[in-house]
Amino acid sequence: MRLSEIAKQFDGQLIGEDKEIKGLKSITTAEEGDLTFITEEKHLKQLKESKATAVLTPFKLEIDIPQVVVKQPNRVFYKLIDIMYPTSHPTGISPKASVGEGAKVGEDVYIGDFTFIHPTAEIGNNVKIYPNCYIGERVKIGDNTVIYPNVVLLKDVEVGKDVILQPGCVIGGDGFGYYQEGGKHKKITHIGKVVIQDGVEIGANTTIDRAMLDKTVIKSGTKIDNLVMVAHNCEIGENTILVSQVGIAGSSKVGNNVILAGQVGVADHITIGDNVVVTAQSGVSKDLEPNKVYGSGLPAVEWSKWKRILFYIHKLPEIVKKLKK
Amino acid sequence: MRLSEIAKQFDGQLIGEDKEIKGLKSITTAEEGDLTFITEEKHLKQLKESKATAVLTPFKLEIDIPQVVVKQPNRVFYKLIDIMYPTSHPTGISPKASVGEGAKVGEDVYIGDFTFIHPTAEIGNNVKIYPNCYIGERVKIGDNTVIYPNVVLLKDVEVGKDVILQPGCVIGGDGFGYYQEGGKHKKITHIGKVVIQDGVEIGANTTIDRAMLDKTVIKSGTKIDNLVMVAHNCEIGENTILVSQVGIAGSSKVGNNVILAGQVGVADHITIGDNVVVTAQSGVSKDLEPNKVYGSGLPAVEWSKWKRILFYIHKLPEIVKKLKK
Amino acid sequence: MRLSEIAKQFDGQLIGEDKEIKGLKSITTAEEGDLTFITEEKHLKQLKESKATAVLTPFKLEIDIPQVVVKQPNRVFYKLIDIMYPTSHPTGISPKASVGEGAKVGEDVYIGDFTFIHPTAEIGNNVKIYPNCYIGERVKIGDNTVIYPNVVLLKDVEVGKDVILQPGCVIGGDGFGYYQEGGKHKKITHIGKVVIQDGVEIGANTTIDRAMLDKTVIKSGTKIDNLVMVAHNCEIGENTILVSQVGIAGSSKVGNNVILAGQVGVADHITIGDNVVVTAQSGVSKDLEPNKVYGSGLPAVEWSKWKRILFYIHKLPEIVKKLKK
Repeated sequence: MRLSEIAKQFDGQLIGEDKEIKGLKSITTAEEGDLTFITEEKHLKQLKESKATAVLTPFKLEIDIPQVVVKQPNRVFYKLIDIMYPTSHPTGISPKASVGEGAKVGEDVYIGDFTFIHPTAEIGNNVKIYPNCYIGERVKIGDNTVIYPNVVLLKDVEVGKDVILQPGCVIGGDGFGYYQEGGKHKKITHIGKVVIQDGVEIGANTTIDRAMLDKTVIKSGTKIDNLVMVAHNCEIGENTILVSQVGIAGSSKVGNNVILAGQVGVADHITIGDNVVVTAQSGVSKDLEPNKVYGSGLPAVEWSKWKRILFYIHKLPEIVKKLKK
Repeated sequence: MRLSEIAKQFDGQLIGEDKEIKGLKSITTAEEGDLTFITEEKHLKQLKESKATAVLTPFKLEIDIPQVVVKQPNRVFYKLIDIMYPTSHPTGISPKASVGEGAKVGEDVYIGDFTFIHPTAEIGNNVKIYPNCYIGERVKIGDNTVIYPNVVLLKDVEVGKDVILQPGCVIGGDGFGYYQEGGKHKKITHIGKVVIQDGVEIGANTTIDRAMLDKTVIKSGTKIDNLVMVAHNCEIGENTILVSQVGIAGSSKVGNNVILAGQVGVADHITIGDNVVVTAQSGVSKDLEPNKVYGSGLPAVEWSKWKRILFYIHKLPEIVKKLKK
Repeated sequence: MRLSEIAKQFDGQLIGEDKEIKGLKSITTAEEGDLTFITEEKHLKQLKESKATAVLTPFKLEIDIPQVVVKQPNRVFYKLIDIMYPTSHPTGISPKASVGEGAKVGEDVYIGDFTFIHPTAEIGNNVKIYPNCYIGERVKIGDNTVIYPNVVLLKDVEVGKDVILQPGCVIGGDGFGYYQEGGKHKKITHIGKVVIQDGVEIGANTTIDRAMLDKTVIKSGTKIDNLVMVAHNCEIGENTILVSQVGIAGSSKVGNNVILAGQVGVADHITIGDNVVVTAQSGVSKDLEPNKVYGSGLPAVEWSKWKRILFYIHKLPEIVKKLKK
């Protein structure tokens, strides 16, 4: 791709010689032939030491190499990645897969070695299922969805279009529900579903449990990171972000455009409004109103200092009592 | 099933017409032919808008549809699920499985495609092992146990009767133990076992490590949720509940009938007494006496408020110092 | 092995009869023929009740059974485990594996049933890959590395020598990166690598994401426990310990010889210096200077007490305001 083409396609201005670009790299790793990008003036020094052949920048730079000035160089860079390094997947149904007789399978699919497809499953067009996956009874998978290796979709899971399931995620495991009888925990059989809507991405080794009766729902455009837990009967809104190791207990509802940062925990039967942000490691034990930022995380300080703080935290009731006197 | 049968079987009273029930649903999703249930008066309005054909209720309702009055309608409902939607599993040993010669395999088992069974493994009667599992050396599995897809049981793991292993859980990985030598971490080879007793359930992608010499034990009736970590040499008592993302460090002992709520962390070599409850996200760094509730979780509040609280938490030692003066 | 040999090999002194040792066990589980070890005087009573045939001890004991006095009995014990119970793995390429034509495979390897090896992968000598693994495009695996069942290595992952990958871990899943466009999250295609250096161990169901452009790196000798998350573009130093359920967000750098205890969370773009220790459940939101211990964990106390402490924590700004008056 030539710099002039990039400038033209992304409404930018080429300053300097029009060169051919062979790769995309960060400032520090760029080699001869690579295009890189800069978003802040403070990286100019690094750029001058870089071997990059050209740079995308939001403002004109005093520099020897050609530059393409564009509004949002990082965004343009991300789009160039998709142009120059398009993601490709294999096609074809492996004879080493186990595709049950009767399974409906669309066009241009990939079904990898050692993947099991139940006879009652329905797989859309252009779906890519990597090796060692399990696709259970009555599972439906929409067009263009990509399922990486070792993913498990148990019975009655519905996956929309353009979904990405990272390796090892488990969708449709039994919800964690029991009733007490004779001092023992008796299993509540879970006959509900999981519905994953269009454009959702689910991270590696994340688990999303089936509902007891109805459905656990992940709405369209929502992105879920690795090792997240979404319990039975939850409803996660649209375009929401669940960062790694978040845990959401049963029947909770998370709104649209919400961000739950890493390791946040949400109790059961909670409602979180639209556009809420919850900061890392916080615990949500009450409903949260929309459009607000919440938190309860404790940033680590030097241990010797923290020990003293903790001592007084534990003494707080006593201290207040003394003060009242 | 007819309403009169349900009333008879669960010691209830049918009020209204004796109808045939075709399905079980929640109030909001019930259709013509479905039975639903109510536990509190406040759901009466929802019930009146429901299309349900009949309702289980703990008290007589002013309502047009037939009702069956029973003591614990939710519990009766759970039992009806098992009657009307019995869980069924396939039977037979797939020719696409790899069952090592010499492996002892009971009657009426299911061994799914691409599941590996070591020649030295012993599998009881009516055991169901789904596709893509790994059953290692000298593993023993008791009668009626169900193992969902992609489960790994490494060598010397013993699993009891009526156990349920959700997809992707790993039992018997090496304990995380090293000794220092020359500034490096040298691996301590773990030659111990994991023992999972009868009636235990283990959640999706949960990990339970083998002991160094002896055994890591999960006692009978205990239920473990998804993404939980139980480290080497732990002993988890009977009928205990470990909620999702709990982590228990090495050699700790958790009593009987304990509940550790979501994301609780337990340090190593801790003893937690019987009937203890630890609230969500708490950290357990000392032994806990039986029959008590413990906690240390911080509920999230608005971030602007939390920032001010945090400022004063960090100033606590200083504040107290000033006060003393 | 005879006690005299052990004494000779580990610079110890045999006191009592020279006997043949058949097994290694803990004090409480030792049987006739077993050697056990003691590190502290307080375990002497237990030892006297033990059926062990002999004991390793750091000081001379008043006891009837033979004893071998050595400097560090636990360390000697660990080394004896490796001598008496050497870890062994199968050898050979299973005809039930799917090894792509063109894949480079070294000598003395094990490739188990239902494991997929991409035609472009390179596997060193003496590598052991258990069943149901996925080894993707251009993956390189160094000599003597052991990969347990159900591990996923996606494209461009480089694994060094003498690495151990516990079951179910996922290396090279896409980093969790999106940009906003029209109110939606657009995926940033990740074309970077993961590099796992020599002697690293990675725990069960742990996930390590690929970098966007460059590489996520785990340096040599570092040990990572189960269910840990290492995000895109992180760099983890040498001989570092990440305990179970730790989560490290994107582009953070962790130094050499660091210990992050269980459930610690690290924000993105953080630098943690060499030799740092962070105590369990702490949150790291700022750079940490080397050679120090940090923390912010709250140890659980009785819930009734914690409720009162929490009440005053939330009132802290108000209390200080009143005091100032």
